[in-house]
Amino acid sequence: MSVTERYGDPDARLGAVNDTVRIQLAHRSVRRFGPREVTEDDLTTLVAAAQSAPTSSNLQPWSVVAVRDPGRRARLAHLAGEQAFIAQAPLFLVWIADLGRARRLAARRGTDVHAADYLETTLIGFIDTALAAQNAVTAAESLGLGSVFVGAIRNRPEEVAAELKLPPHTVAAFGLAVGEPDPAEAAGVKPRLPQAAVLHREQYGEGADAHLDVYDERLAAYNARYGLKGNWTDRVLARLRGPESMGGRHKLRAVLESFGLPSR
Amino acid sequence: MSVTERYGDPDARLGAVNDTVRIQLAHRSVRRFGPREVTEDDLTTLVAAAQSAPTSSNLQPWSVVAVRDPGRRARLAHLAGEQAFIAQAPLFLVWIADLGRARRLAARRGTDVHAADYLETTLIGFIDTALAAQNAVTAAESLGLGSVFVGAIRNRPEEVAAELKLPPHTVAAFGLAVGEPDPAEAAGVKPRLPQAAVLHREQYGEGADAHLDVYDERLAAYNARYGLKGNWTDRVLARLRGPESMGGRHKLRAVLESFGLPSR
Repeated sequence: MSVTERYGDPDARLGAVNDTVRIQLAHRSVRRFGPREVTEDDLTTLVAAAQSAPTSSNLQPWSVVAVRDPGRRARLAHLAGEQAFIAQAPLFLVWIADLGRARRLAARRGTDVHAADYLETTLIGFIDTALAAQNAVTAAESLGLGSVFVGAIRNRPEEVAAELKLPPHTVAAFGLAVGEPDPAEAAGVKPRLPQAAVLHREQYGEGADAHLDVYDERLAAYNARYGLKGNWTDRVLARLRGPESMGGRHKLRAVLESFGLPSR
Repeated sequence: MSVTERYGDPDARLGAVNDTVRIQLAHRSVRRFGPREVTEDDLTTLVAAAQSAPTSSNLQPWSVVAVRDPGRRARLAHLAGEQAFIAQAPLFLVWIADLGRARRLAARRGTDVHAADYLETTLIGFIDTALAAQNAVTAAESLGLGSVFVGAIRNRPEEVAAELKLPPHTVAAFGLAVGEPDPAEAAGVKPRLPQAAVLHREQYGEGADAHLDVYDERLAAYNARYGLKGNWTDRVLARLRGPESMGGRHKLRAVLESFGLPSR
């Protein structure tokens, strides 16, 4: 049952399930793809699902670049930390936090959008892009496709912007490799934190941290199954150790500023 | 048909659809709720769906506070710009961008997570919170529930943090009011930008802006149906005019800094 895999807990149960929830529970990152094409019909559906997600004040501050060209996928794979699966996936979607469209609307009217100078508005750009992209992930899975997000598209943002001809006031927020899951891939449904560790009632209670030790054990067991070392704490602390663990992204604030997405 | 409503375009068509995609296409913001309770089973499913969303390096940098207490919902409705539907919804979920958990893991090990000092990591917090929350939105709709996001929870973040006892290195990213949609609510599926305005092929093309005029007409027609004035351009420019249109959120960067979520 998918909820037991989701939590790495044989006793996990859900009272309310249906086909859509089952699709969500079964999510895994897919980094090895089969031969099936992602058709134009599939792509149209993914984007319509994405556009159906909520968006703050209907601003719709995002765009998406669909990359199919093998050469371009190979170059993006290189720029995103040599992640070869980007070149192997039939479709690579680059999700763009896009305040450029609103700035161009303002220019056409001879006015300005000063709110776009603030971190708040940049955050709305990233949040709304994420809401949209997650709908595309679910839609893809409902169509039998798999995917994986690529945050490393932010490692070398200037080169990515040049490759995709991104205009001012836009930035590649993250990539999404899409294709048919190869069942031979050595990867499973990764267990998440016990629900009691993330769900609080009425107020945040740090007692929730009492559930972290059992999760460390579950994740260590999951990792060992795939030949990986360490528990959750080990991996979180390694990932967040410092600028050297960020693949260049410690410079992101300055980059956003230079792209016309200031953090005032 | 839901795709024609989604685009306000009688000629819109999708080649690939299924029940999950139909649920996504039919999304609308729900701000008026019927008498049905959101059960504990429903809540458990929403959170399991949220936890099933992708998360960068499995960091899981979010928490959620489920608020049912009527007094607390009324106070949050007040703090979030007097949005009375928060007090009317049976359940109000406050999604927390949570770097506190990782900081506490580091403290337990006597080490530090310097990467959490950077805007990049704060952004990951907000992005991953959004991915999770959008899965909860879809799961809710699959269960016959409706919802609406509340960005205005960021209007008065210190008071919200006090109300929810949020610890350091966490912030309320957005709220989500959840309940049974009242069919008598005067609200529909809001048309989105033509797909050609947001979907680019291989590289970003500003020619996509040619599709904005027809959208302005469609949204003006939609707004008129609900007694609202203006087209899309009018509303975007009003929303982004300047700090005075931001409900206090122009101060967000300083607030995040004071909460221990710096934008280095």
